[in-house]
Amino acid sequence: MSDLRFRIKAHSERATKTIVKARSFSFTVDEPEDLGGKDEAANPVEYMLGALAGCLNVMAHVIAQEMDFELKGVKIDIVGDLNPARLFGQSMEERAGFKGLEVKIKADAEGVSDETLEKWKDAIADRCPVCDNLKNPTPVKISVK
Amino acid sequence: MSDLRFRIKAHSERATKTIVKARSFSFTVDEPEDLGGKDEAANPVEYMLGALAGCLNVMAHVIAQEMDFELKGVKIDIVGDLNPARLFGQSMEERAGFKGLEVKIKADAEGVSDETLEKWKDAIADRCPVCDNLKNPTPVKISVK
Repeated sequence: MSDLRFRIKAHSERATKTIVKARSFSFTVDEPEDLGGKDEAANPVEYMLGALAGCLNVMAHVIAQEMDFELKGVKIDIVGDLNPARLFGQSMEERAGFKGLEVKIKADAEGVSDETLEKWKDAIADRCPVCDNLKNPTPVKISVK
Repeated sequence: MSDLRFRIKAHSERATKTIVKARSFSFTVDEPEDLGGKDEAANPVEYMLGALAGCLNVMAHVIAQEMDFELKGVKIDIVGDLNPARLFGQSMEERAGFKGLEVKIKADAEGVSDETLEKWKDAIADRCPVCDNLKNPTPVKISVK
């Protein structure tokens, strides 16, 4: 298959508030007050977790169909811890981002064995684009003008 | 500093449509029609790029303040290519996610040297949480019930 290209354009409305345009869509990113924002929207790392949830949902359904069981829906909880010391320039000892993510998927499906659900989960984890970009290194080239 | 914990909860409304809750906020994720969705919202990888833009904006301002120059704003473009073959189960040769991301940041700041902007950019890249989670491996533990 050919590569697909995705692109967003964003601008700052203020130091913590960003307006993101993706095709015909637009969404706002902000920070909670304790991180210097005005709490007008979810923050960047919450959007990243939401991106992961959205991608896992798509893959959950793609792979359930391949494995020939009926998936009525999924519920997904994702939690992660990060230390903001590097972000704020107070210490460079720890990484800037999440140290790890814990994802719980609750599948609404009847009569599916635990073994099948484990295989389903492993295929989701292997083939989900956002999951891949988090688990494995991705070159990020930044230029400024 | 102590770790900060972030959490989202999500549920599928259908195979490609996900509703994400982050604290008091909610956003919708969908896929375009050529990826099997109804194109009601940005898609997962676009939210991931938007998360990166939001995080880069915050860091751009944090670090400009540390470096003592006035940043009036930033414009950020991000583009990346991915091959959907693995997602669709057609080939396991290539990775599932973006092969790489290209980020262009346009800084609205007067009288700042190119050398200063390069140092600023390097610090942003090093200390941005979302950038870290994309550039470097992050353990993602998935469990199913």
